[in-house]
Amino acid sequence: MEEITIKDIARICGVGVSTVSRAINNHPDINPETKEMIMRVIKENNYVPNNSARNLKRQDAKAIAVLVKGINNSFFSQMIKVLEEEIKEKSYAMVLQHVDYDEDEVEVALKLVKEKRLRGIIFLGGYLVHSEEKLAQLHVPFILSTTGMLPKGFSRNTYSSVAVDDTKESYKMVDYLCKNGHKDIAILCARKTDASIGKLRLEGYKKALKDNGIEVREELILPMRSDLEDYSLENGYMVTKEFLEKQIPCTAIFAISDMLAIGAGKALSDAGYKVPEDISLAGFDGVEIGKYVIPSLTTLKQPVDSMARETARILFDIIGKKAKHQHCVFDGELVVRDSTMPRT
Amino acid sequence: MEEITIKDIARICGVGVSTVSRAINNHPDINPETKEMIMRVIKENNYVPNNSARNLKRQDAKAIAVLVKGINNSFFSQMIKVLEEEIKEKSYAMVLQHVDYDEDEVEVALKLVKEKRLRGIIFLGGYLVHSEEKLAQLHVPFILSTTGMLPKGFSRNTYSSVAVDDTKESYKMVDYLCKNGHKDIAILCARKTDASIGKLRLEGYKKALKDNGIEVREELILPMRSDLEDYSLENGYMVTKEFLEKQIPCTAIFAISDMLAIGAGKALSDAGYKVPEDISLAGFDGVEIGKYVIPSLTTLKQPVDSMARETARILFDIIGKKAKHQHCVFDGELVVRDSTMPRT
Repeated sequence: MEEITIKDIARICGVGVSTVSRAINNHPDINPETKEMIMRVIKENNYVPNNSARNLKRQDAKAIAVLVKGINNSFFSQMIKVLEEEIKEKSYAMVLQHVDYDEDEVEVALKLVKEKRLRGIIFLGGYLVHSEEKLAQLHVPFILSTTGMLPKGFSRNTYSSVAVDDTKESYKMVDYLCKNGHKDIAILCARKTDASIGKLRLEGYKKALKDNGIEVREELILPMRSDLEDYSLENGYMVTKEFLEKQIPCTAIFAISDMLAIGAGKALSDAGYKVPEDISLAGFDGVEIGKYVIPSLTTLKQPVDSMARETARILFDIIGKKAKHQHCVFDGELVVRDSTMPRT
Repeated sequence: MEEITIKDIARICGVGVSTVSRAINNHPDINPETKEMIMRVIKENNYVPNNSARNLKRQDAKAIAVLVKGINNSFFSQMIKVLEEEIKEKSYAMVLQHVDYDEDEVEVALKLVKEKRLRGIIFLGGYLVHSEEKLAQLHVPFILSTTGMLPKGFSRNTYSSVAVDDTKESYKMVDYLCKNGHKDIAILCARKTDASIGKLRLEGYKKALKDNGIEVREELILPMRSDLEDYSLENGYMVTKEFLEKQIPCTAIFAISDMLAIGAGKALSDAGYKVPEDISLAGFDGVEIGKYVIPSLTTLKQPVDSMARETARILFDIIGKKAKHQHCVFDGELVVRDSTMPRT
């Protein structure tokens, strides 16, 4: 079968070659119906546009690895979606690898960098506890995105990072609850061994309570269960269920992720509590589904799209030697919806 | 720095080499505290176990591509998580690529196969409308997982597939609603142009109505909006909102995905309808969050873990020349929760 050219497509459609080109390249300046017709003819004739061939060449043998702790989290799903668009845009392949909670992400990365094609690594979530020497073995640039900070003393010139200030944003939420008259605020948080965002968000909680003249009480600090998946709906559900059985007075629950909060909301409902009339409920992250649960979830929204895009931009700038390592801190946004109300 | 060996670790820990090996390989026959101590010493000394080196070698230069239509869907997130575990287990890299609704997945795949490392392709979701000749250009084995069938006349010896029988499972749900006294059942479904699972699920709906002596009415067939993301929460919300404004009598809504159903539930709540007292609501897929929304969602659960594992198993069998192409149909399960009730 002879190869079909763009001229053949133009001829069949009765339009000019430049119109076909506009259709292929998603150019805005084309009638949608004409575009649809052209795309249909292209499909029917198995025409492979030239730029595919071009991309194909550029794409050869280059990849970015994305190492994720907790792929099941909606927040990361959205990050990954945007990262993938950006990586594809640069004609790189994205190698996605999930890292278990107890698995060492630098070990995983060290295996991946043996691949000659790998040009950079994005660590998503989790936290790194490794020595500078060990990280130096990675040989390719890496960026920590929404990841806990490296230990103190670590040179900030050897890696990039993109995150919100977890302590500050968590403070913002708890301060909002305090200012609305809540005093008995439970926090659904990370395990005590956590040295990552979980620790930072707990610090923000404690600081906000203190600044509002409220004592920090251990009985209101509810760490996730270690036998269940971290940050999962089930973990939020089970921890809240067990907490409610203890009948400790409490007017608000702040969960350090929206998924935990949605799990907590179900436990509250099952135990006969009304949100927000009996207990206010707040999350963190700003995942899309928070708008659709009933009642809709008050949350601290991370600008996930901007953060993912910035992550990719910084990494590609470094790969292209256009920039040095950078540390970018984004502002979160307190989004008040129906799951919280003032305590009178 | 001289390289640390397993013997050094054993010496520092005061245990035998075999104990260190058991710790590293997650062998059950080891005291948890000893294991923790060993793993800490390993970390502190930056010891890289030999089996990492072994994996590293095996891992070199082999990859499986996963092409996904709709990465934001919780159902696919779970599929991808399991696929990735299975692919990693075989020491392959997983290259994940999202394909837009209007993008041609075979084009994307054709670019990827130019990569010499690629050994197989998993198409997740969507549907293929291509000629056998074109698919033959892929050169590596591929499998359609939860993807609409290929056009008739296509030889089933050239590809594998894993899916539920979408028509049959959709029938099951609608038949359940009919048997519970519902007659005015709306379906939140795919656009008319859809030739994929959306079409099959709509067929199941129509067949179930007919078999229960209920007329199919166009006004109760609610296609997703083309200007919003397919199968998204927002699409479910908007289509339901617009439907409710028309005040067409209806006692149940069946959405062909759980995400659409959750969006629909919010629209119902915002419009003052109670689920299930005023209108019953059912979804399809069985995503985890369906258990946690309020009220919990009745759904048709696909066995996502088994389907993902089977997808990987078949593909690797074909790559290893242990088997020919296979077509595996899984049974779904009707899961009745709180969002539906009988109509008396």
